[in-house]
Amino acid sequence: MSQLEVTEKTRIRRGPKRAVFDRAILEQVFNQAHVAHVGFIQDDPSGEGLSGKIQPFVIPMLCWIDGDLLYVHGASSSRMIKTLTGGSEACVTATILDGMVLSKSAFHHSANYRSAMVFGQFFLIENPIEINRQYKIFMERIAPGRWDEVRPPSEIELKATKMLAIKLDQASVKVRSGGPNEDKEDLDIPAWTGEMVIKHPLTAMVADQHSTDGIKVPDYSEAWDDRWRV
Amino acid sequence: MSQLEVTEKTRIRRGPKRAVFDRAILEQVFNQAHVAHVGFIQDDPSGEGLSGKIQPFVIPMLCWIDGDLLYVHGASSSRMIKTLTGGSEACVTATILDGMVLSKSAFHHSANYRSAMVFGQFFLIENPIEINRQYKIFMERIAPGRWDEVRPPSEIELKATKMLAIKLDQASVKVRSGGPNEDKEDLDIPAWTGEMVIKHPLTAMVADQHSTDGIKVPDYSEAWDDRWRV
Repeated sequence: MSQLEVTEKTRIRRGPKRAVFDRAILEQVFNQAHVAHVGFIQDDPSGEGLSGKIQPFVIPMLCWIDGDLLYVHGASSSRMIKTLTGGSEACVTATILDGMVLSKSAFHHSANYRSAMVFGQFFLIENPIEINRQYKIFMERIAPGRWDEVRPPSEIELKATKMLAIKLDQASVKVRSGGPNEDKEDLDIPAWTGEMVIKHPLTAMVADQHSTDGIKVPDYSEAWDDRWRV
Repeated sequence: MSQLEVTEKTRIRRGPKRAVFDRAILEQVFNQAHVAHVGFIQDDPSGEGLSGKIQPFVIPMLCWIDGDLLYVHGASSSRMIKTLTGGSEACVTATILDGMVLSKSAFHHSANYRSAMVFGQFFLIENPIEINRQYKIFMERIAPGRWDEVRPPSEIELKATKMLAIKLDQASVKVRSGGPNEDKEDLDIPAWTGEMVIKHPLTAMVADQHSTDGIKVPDYSEAWDDRWRV
């Protein structure tokens, strides 16, 4: 079990007992969420913002982890990709809501969740061999075995898209699990207490009109659902 | 159907054909996600960041909508709450990943999703009657009927927590649905194509050791799951 290092930036100030430092949980959260919420700062296009006309943006992006990096990709022409590769500080967060925690008192109601946060700057992946290797890894996460069955990206398609990565060395993870905390004085209140557990996504394959007749429905769903069974 | 107004800040530049302006979809996304990813800017605690030592943060927060406002709450002492109520520009995003779109070509693979984004500044809700009313609304969303069964917040508990809201007048929504786009040249590739649909959370009630014996399991789960059937 690899440990996350605590830095001044990643130290969890609020609810420090919920901090976990298991690198495997960090990966699990991003792998199960599939979507990371990428925060960055940009000039406020309306020019009306405070703090020197800068505006935070939070954009959802599909992500994947390989080794010590978290990867995203996007259209080369997008302002987000330009900002992220221009040395802008980023904060990348993924959250799994695991359940609602129901207590005898309104105040002690809570949520069970796992949340992972990465700080740093994205950089461009430029080596064409590495780009190809990472797209394959990305595809294999979504649909194992599919890379070899579909047309690989053309030169033009590769140019239209940029692949970015961020190091996982400035990261923090917060987890809450289990039932409610109760004040002693509340224990006689006749209320159902416990957790409303959220059963996480299972998948279903729905064929398209161009899906080739006679092709067996792929078993990608199993790999996807397996990620929720760990 | 109420319409979202397009402003210079909320105009969708990337994939404008995926923009939708139905206010009901905005609400649906936040109501189904339950967690909003709140982006804001703060002094970089490590002092190492670029762009004048400021750092974006993206923090997951439970949220609810009532009328024209999106609400969150948090510990009064947290730096996030202090920043958000100090006039900091915010960007609040929620995303539902609805499925993976599987095409004949690697490039045309995509995701089906609904994403809502709100820009603005949070402000403090200070009227105690309104705070109480909103906590009840929030609780009723999570567990209908529960507010009257549990102990209401005490003065001390109310002081320990701050309730914040942001207007929904600077908002945008992006939606992708349906099967893959294909290039004509790829139609003969013998691959299964379509959508791997993500079946969204259903809930289960798991009692705690302090749950009162003889109390019927509440039907909160039905309301929760109903939100996914619309």
